[in-house]
Amino acid sequence: MPETVFHVDQTKSMHDQDVPGHNRWHPEIPAVTEVRPGDEFRIECKDWTDGQVGDNDSADDVRDMVLDHNHMLSGPVAVAGAEPGDLLVVDYLDIGPAHTVERGRGGQPGQGWGYTGIFARDNGGGFLTDHFPEAGKAVWDFHGRYATSRHLPGVRIASNIHPGLAGCAPSEELLTKWNRRERALVDTDPDRVPPLALPPLESAALPGTLTGAARDRVAREGARTVPPREHGGNVDIKNLGVGSRVYYPVYVPGANFSIGDLHFAQGDGEISFCGAVEMGGHVDIGVGLIKDGMRRYGTSMPLFEPGRQQPHYTEFLSFMGVSVDESGEQHYMDATIAYRRACLNAIDHLKQFGYTGQQAYLILCAAPIEGRVSGIVDIPNACCTLYLPTEIFDVDIRPGDSGPVRTDRGQCAVPSS
Amino acid sequence: MPETVFHVDQTKSMHDQDVPGHNRWHPEIPAVTEVRPGDEFRIECKDWTDGQVGDNDSADDVRDMVLDHNHMLSGPVAVAGAEPGDLLVVDYLDIGPAHTVERGRGGQPGQGWGYTGIFARDNGGGFLTDHFPEAGKAVWDFHGRYATSRHLPGVRIASNIHPGLAGCAPSEELLTKWNRRERALVDTDPDRVPPLALPPLESAALPGTLTGAARDRVAREGARTVPPREHGGNVDIKNLGVGSRVYYPVYVPGANFSIGDLHFAQGDGEISFCGAVEMGGHVDIGVGLIKDGMRRYGTSMPLFEPGRQQPHYTEFLSFMGVSVDESGEQHYMDATIAYRRACLNAIDHLKQFGYTGQQAYLILCAAPIEGRVSGIVDIPNACCTLYLPTEIFDVDIRPGDSGPVRTDRGQCAVPSS
Amino acid sequence: MPETVFHVDQTKSMHDQDVPGHNRWHPEIPAVTEVRPGDEFRIECKDWTDGQVGDNDSADDVRDMVLDHNHMLSGPVAVAGAEPGDLLVVDYLDIGPAHTVERGRGGQPGQGWGYTGIFARDNGGGFLTDHFPEAGKAVWDFHGRYATSRHLPGVRIASNIHPGLAGCAPSEELLTKWNRRERALVDTDPDRVPPLALPPLESAALPGTLTGAARDRVAREGARTVPPREHGGNVDIKNLGVGSRVYYPVYVPGANFSIGDLHFAQGDGEISFCGAVEMGGHVDIGVGLIKDGMRRYGTSMPLFEPGRQQPHYTEFLSFMGVSVDESGEQHYMDATIAYRRACLNAIDHLKQFGYTGQQAYLILCAAPIEGRVSGIVDIPNACCTLYLPTEIFDVDIRPGDSGPVRTDRGQCAVPSS
Amino acid sequence: MPETVFHVDQTKSMHDQDVPGHNRWHPEIPAVTEVRPGDEFRIECKDWTDGQVGDNDSADDVRDMVLDHNHMLSGPVAVAGAEPGDLLVVDYLDIGPAHTVERGRGGQPGQGWGYTGIFARDNGGGFLTDHFPEAGKAVWDFHGRYATSRHLPGVRIASNIHPGLAGCAPSEELLTKWNRRERALVDTDPDRVPPLALPPLESAALPGTLTGAARDRVAREGARTVPPREHGGNVDIKNLGVGSRVYYPVYVPGANFSIGDLHFAQGDGEISFCGAVEMGGHVDIGVGLIKDGMRRYGTSMPLFEPGRQQPHYTEFLSFMGVSVDESGEQHYMDATIAYRRACLNAIDHLKQFGYTGQQAYLILCAAPIEGRVSGIVDIPNACCTLYLPTEIFDVDIRPGDSGPVRTDRGQCAVPSS
Repeated sequence: MPETVFHVDQTKSMHDQDVPGHNRWHPEIPAVTEVRPGDEFRIECKDWTDGQVGDNDSADDVRDMVLDHNHMLSGPVAVAGAEPGDLLVVDYLDIGPAHTVERGRGGQPGQGWGYTGIFARDNGGGFLTDHFPEAGKAVWDFHGRYATSRHLPGVRIASNIHPGLAGCAPSEELLTKWNRRERALVDTDPDRVPPLALPPLESAALPGTLTGAARDRVAREGARTVPPREHGGNVDIKNLGVGSRVYYPVYVPGANFSIGDLHFAQGDGEISFCGAVEMGGHVDIGVGLIKDGMRRYGTSMPLFEPGRQQPHYTEFLSFMGVSVDESGEQHYMDATIAYRRACLNAIDHLKQFGYTGQQAYLILCAAPIEGRVSGIVDIPNACCTLYLPTEIFDVDIRPGDSGPVRTDRGQCAVPSS
Repeated sequence: MPETVFHVDQTKSMHDQDVPGHNRWHPEIPAVTEVRPGDEFRIECKDWTDGQVGDNDSADDVRDMVLDHNHMLSGPVAVAGAEPGDLLVVDYLDIGPAHTVERGRGGQPGQGWGYTGIFARDNGGGFLTDHFPEAGKAVWDFHGRYATSRHLPGVRIASNIHPGLAGCAPSEELLTKWNRRERALVDTDPDRVPPLALPPLESAALPGTLTGAARDRVAREGARTVPPREHGGNVDIKNLGVGSRVYYPVYVPGANFSIGDLHFAQGDGEISFCGAVEMGGHVDIGVGLIKDGMRRYGTSMPLFEPGRQQPHYTEFLSFMGVSVDESGEQHYMDATIAYRRACLNAIDHLKQFGYTGQQAYLILCAAPIEGRVSGIVDIPNACCTLYLPTEIFDVDIRPGDSGPVRTDRGQCAVPSS
Repeated sequence: MPETVFHVDQTKSMHDQDVPGHNRWHPEIPAVTEVRPGDEFRIECKDWTDGQVGDNDSADDVRDMVLDHNHMLSGPVAVAGAEPGDLLVVDYLDIGPAHTVERGRGGQPGQGWGYTGIFARDNGGGFLTDHFPEAGKAVWDFHGRYATSRHLPGVRIASNIHPGLAGCAPSEELLTKWNRRERALVDTDPDRVPPLALPPLESAALPGTLTGAARDRVAREGARTVPPREHGGNVDIKNLGVGSRVYYPVYVPGANFSIGDLHFAQGDGEISFCGAVEMGGHVDIGVGLIKDGMRRYGTSMPLFEPGRQQPHYTEFLSFMGVSVDESGEQHYMDATIAYRRACLNAIDHLKQFGYTGQQAYLILCAAPIEGRVSGIVDIPNACCTLYLPTEIFDVDIRPGDSGPVRTDRGQCAVPSS
Repeated sequence: MPETVFHVDQTKSMHDQDVPGHNRWHPEIPAVTEVRPGDEFRIECKDWTDGQVGDNDSADDVRDMVLDHNHMLSGPVAVAGAEPGDLLVVDYLDIGPAHTVERGRGGQPGQGWGYTGIFARDNGGGFLTDHFPEAGKAVWDFHGRYATSRHLPGVRIASNIHPGLAGCAPSEELLTKWNRRERALVDTDPDRVPPLALPPLESAALPGTLTGAARDRVAREGARTVPPREHGGNVDIKNLGVGSRVYYPVYVPGANFSIGDLHFAQGDGEISFCGAVEMGGHVDIGVGLIKDGMRRYGTSMPLFEPGRQQPHYTEFLSFMGVSVDESGEQHYMDATIAYRRACLNAIDHLKQFGYTGQQAYLILCAAPIEGRVSGIVDIPNACCTLYLPTEIFDVDIRPGDSGPVRTDRGQCAVPSS
């Protein structure tokens, strides 16, 4: 077990840790520790909402989530000798949930359980928010490297544990570019619900260990953590788990690497926005440097090699979607719509087996589904496909002569009123 | 070897076969044969261009392609007892290239070789047409279930042979819906090059065995074969290969199943439009019926179970892209742009090893790359990822301290002038 | 399709081919053709029994098999420039069953069907001959790259097509060594039934194209083809299939490579001796040479890299065995007994589901089971394990609260009296 | 994290734990705790030698090992309601190394490191003891789910963590059978070094919490833990890792399940006897019961379903062996010899790359090699194969024109004199 360079007390907010992390991206957020190339170390992480969701049977906490508070990241960790233009080589050696006292229920996310949420349309929404505008939630109980949920009976998934969010601090120039282009998008429809993007917001900002005027300025300028960007960030790539090696571009001296938003499991797309099995926990990392790697490899974004320890599934029922929207309107090569339609087709299928639409939505979020851009050239229809592992279910969901076995599956956690 | 129910003489155009197939979708195209549930049979297919591309070192044939002539399909094959609302169960038992006389070169596509093409922007274009507006081509030599290309030295790919295009005939109602919605899209920018969609076109239409006025009407009304639609069609799903079982919706009595556009290999996205390793050949099929399956399983599109015989790769170098376009403009959750950026990042990487951009583009088309919708909720950026199997190359393309090994890789086939 | 350098008319015995192959190993069997390094070519093969087994419902043909006639090999193929001490690099580019006229049944093995046999104890026996001393047979119908058997209802297996037997001709020195050591073994119990080994036997020998005195001498001296030996030979390795590369030691000028005994499918161990799904067919091969490779790589036996196209299974029910024999006697680290006990445990399990012992035995022969030497050091018990893919069955064979579902599975083909 | 029902202080011997485990099998060893079907719980384990091996560069500790002290097991754990004839369903939910203070080196096995040892011939020996009669050792440093060894430079292996040893207590009848048959084997050559089997031995026995006369009797009668037997026991099956479900036969009321000998990694065969990457740690288990399962499923040994989380490798260099021993003597269908020859062939190959024989031996022990019984019917030669994952090496070990790259790899830890 390597040395822990960033500690988290899971019972406290990130604001109240001895050395707090941050929830905005900014080059001036100070590194809280320094490591050297060749080092291996542990970073502890809060769940992405910093403890806003509980192990209970109500979706009120998801409905009432303070989104501006989210992604609490651990770091930044400086790497000695890193300079702009280098590639920071990060090996994800191991990832695990938060340790816990010995009980079945309660505690903080990661302490034996995790959650998947559906955000309400008027509080962030998600990929299928037009179809599922109300909040919902499933709590997952961890059974080693498997999970089940009392809100999704009949489903057992293997963990593909991974960090949702990681990357190096942006340079000032990159930060400016991010904020400018996202603001321009928001300005095209500033009153949209949910919004098109999330510009910097001082409220609820935690700019690391900064204080005073520097803190206030960084809080005002810091980029929000929600989108993935050139540096990586909130990529939510389920295949980038244990055993993966990632080559992150470096933009500031010391690299200033931060990480958070750990996922016990997730399907491609993380489709409900809070769609992984969210948890706090720890990640063990090894680092190296490729000097001048961005230029030598001609890269401006992270490259990665996925690990060998993803769970194997070979039995799938697969669904397809094309870029015709739900109203029947034809769109041009829109993979987003195509994948949405594939997801909706899968949900329709699962409903035949007794799951509610919200339950099916939550299953697709958290289960290790594969989501592919299968055809992206056959005008005007992109074709996306979704591969649902049939072995996660306690019944056979493949079509057959005898028709689907419909079982009472109850429902997921919903809001109290 | 099952009985062949649709014969093709590879040396002749589909127009000139004893029993021709078709290149438009229409409910009135007559079935050319009938099979029964439980039957297994063989269908022979021309390559999708019906022989317009040759085994040579010029991309003139790709540049000058008559697109309206394309996808020559084999069929329709009627299935006794099939009625609208059923699911037609199709097992892809085996797929192979066209048999050939014993020579290394020449002949028709599939006869020991296949091709991957880049269409010029003014003749159809492709996913990256703004970056690669000129025609290009790679000819692949088949070595059993592997292929190499003299135009892409240093690359050897395993075949994931599959049909690009298959499905049942649409009902009149469905056909009308298709033509209407695609026309509406075209009308938003009717002069665009390349066009937004391809409306019905009598020119070059082959409506099967119809003759006379019926032929002319169907040629005028028939939907083009390019896009995937509710019935499946030109889905270009690389994972739907040998051993797959597909459940196709039935819209007309007898189902009237057709198939074509066989691919020796392809990566997710088939990104250059003519992006697979294209070939003529044969497909062995078993059929069954699930009566009233569309209603019972609540499905309006094909479902499928992928086969077990796809080639295994576990070593990947992976690239990501987000929905910021090449000019730096921010788009909202656009998976198409995100995947395009991932492709461009992969191409930039391969250029460091001596491949031209066109060559790299062709490699991504034909190699068994995985293309995923990794994150589709983190506003405003979709995150797509591309997994390039490193074992297809004769050098190690993974980043390292010593930098990329740049080798002279020549170039792909280009137009003569 | 590469040029065929060895032709077989499936309707004729190997004796009656225009250019016959051979069924003994001897350095003086003349090469029938020559290829060069870099060449790709096709070799056609008879099934290993040269057509002694029919597509029928009786095991009489297996019971009455003339074993001395067996393994009819195609070749030898000389490779220009090959010298003793080189490694012959053989790429198995593709392998397929014999082509056939279009019918469901009949013809020669490989022409749409194959067979798995249990030899009677007094005619060769097999791994479990003490338990199953009578002949038995299952005929498999090919469905593309899958097979089913009317004699084993409820089972459908994916093909892992491979050659059972291949290698280069031995030197005279090596041949002498083989014959001497095997004779010494036979001499320890010369009257055993079945015999301990098979010494040279002129009867039924086919020493290729030799004639006259040379023919007779080679027929008397030639090593039998049954065992695998230093050169490879009858290795029956199911993982050495399409896409594999094998490095074969060369012992005579020209290498003189021969091949035969094609298998549509097989499990580890090929446990009934005639345990694969046997067939005639063809194999496409590419060759190269590593000069002086035996010395440079310090090897005296074939090395190989398995291919990527083996069928994927991830659901297994697994059985173990240790080196205590069926009478309860303890043996020291005997992996043969341990694997036998694992096989017997698997058979006992399948009998709970309605299969006869012979049927279960045949399933383990032909299905893609994995057989492992798991522990070989824990004195006195070796531990071997057998992994049975559960997806090949039409019922769930995994243990559960409700007990096994016993179904009438009929029986396999048995002798007529 | 489930409740821990068996605690271990890694710094103390199993003898000195508050509640000690045991190192013999006997029905009268009392259960130390009881769980119920449906429970999930944690068991902590010492490494199999109970701390006899250190994190240092000498093999003295392996050379001088007190073997009679070994396999310290944790348990027995009683399961409420379990009766003889039931199947105990055990889910291996998670397995991990011992936690440690934060340092790179030292501590107990499992605390950031593990070891692989070669026992000297006169102290137990191993599979290749005739070739490697001296003690040797490699210490592995854990890097999350990977390990490297300073004694085996250039090798990095992925963990396939699993328990080497687990099972339910034998009945008195079964115990008697074990002791009788193993004694009979020993009696055939009582002075052999190493011995043929290990009869009961009071010296160094730890019969759990028993005291007084009962303790002494059980110490005298208890079966040694080394071999796998009907109940499972020391099976050393690398595929029986995280995510596996095992069905263990129950022989005594309460089942009395014990477990130990955790392995961070191992190849098929565990060929040096101390051949895994040995460690202390913990295992999280869920239990269930299938009442009367032994009869209903006709089983007398454990069945299991392997987990989905084994590391994926697809690039192998493979070696074969047949049952001709090193002196050239022919043996009849001896899979033990065949696998030994395959191992020796692999060792010879690795020596071309600069590893010593002992180093190569240690690599084959610990790396995730596949060892198969490929052909077990081709008289007189069994054929076993060994698949060595090429990606664990920092050089390409596949044969090629340019010959092997020989590097100075130093040596493993050896005895001090």
